[in-house]
Amino acid sequence: MSEQHDILAANTAYYEAFASADAEKMSRIWADQDVTCVHPGWPALVGRPAILQSYRNIFGNPNQERVEPHNAMAMVFGDEGRVICIELIGNAYALAATNWFRRVTGVWRMIHHQASLISMTASVTVPKLSAQRLN
Amino acid sequence: MSEQHDILAANTAYYEAFASADAEKMSRIWADQDVTCVHPGWPALVGRPAILQSYRNIFGNPNQERVEPHNAMAMVFGDEGRVICIELIGNAYALAATNWFRRVTGVWRMIHHQASLISMTASVTVPKLSAQRLN
Repeated sequence: MSEQHDILAANTAYYEAFASADAEKMSRIWADQDVTCVHPGWPALVGRPAILQSYRNIFGNPNQERVEPHNAMAMVFGDEGRVICIELIGNAYALAATNWFRRVTGVWRMIHHQASLISMTASVTVPKLSAQRLN
Repeated sequence: MSEQHDILAANTAYYEAFASADAEKMSRIWADQDVTCVHPGWPALVGRPAILQSYRNIFGNPNQERVEPHNAMAMVFGDEGRVICIELIGNAYALAATNWFRRVTGVWRMIHHQASLISMTASVTVPKLSAQRLN
């Protein structure tokens, strides 16, 4: 259970870095190598420079909504593990997020983040996104 | 380079199973444990029963469009590796897909799939999805 606790704490730290727009903390959360990131609606970013720049851009956006994690669930396998959670963005959008961590010298560091839109509230004027929309 | 070749071949096999709507082949592609799947617009699925059922449902949909992988790029780290690629669905949608594999007794088997919508063509009447839409 300690592993579960530790990886969930790393997941919480990720969202705290996001909430406080703390680029330095975000930099420490991400691993030094073998990293990928897929923000919602973006193509995949590969490597620390592109990923950390993307967070600086997001943190510099004055209209960026708060991102709140919910229902976090951890799966650990050896020195890797992922956390699956729901991100609520500004109480208007729900995303399915996968946050993948690797234990590097005892510390869980992020090696992959991907968030996919799963629903919007009825107050949003665009249609609700669903698998059927892909047909 | 052999590892890269092998994991890319596993990725190709995944899309071949999808294209041929082959539930048995899909079952062999997925690992026996520690598996998660996020189809576009769906919440995360955890465990083989839910994941394999989702593919049976997709394969049973007469309107399911063809999914074509492009620009596959592999990153291998020990006995795990991911393939990042673009999925083109019916030439109308582009998705960023992450396909994560684990080497189990010498065979790369899928432990995670997540596909996120990144663009739609102008012929689609709903607005183009982008990060700005989340603000």
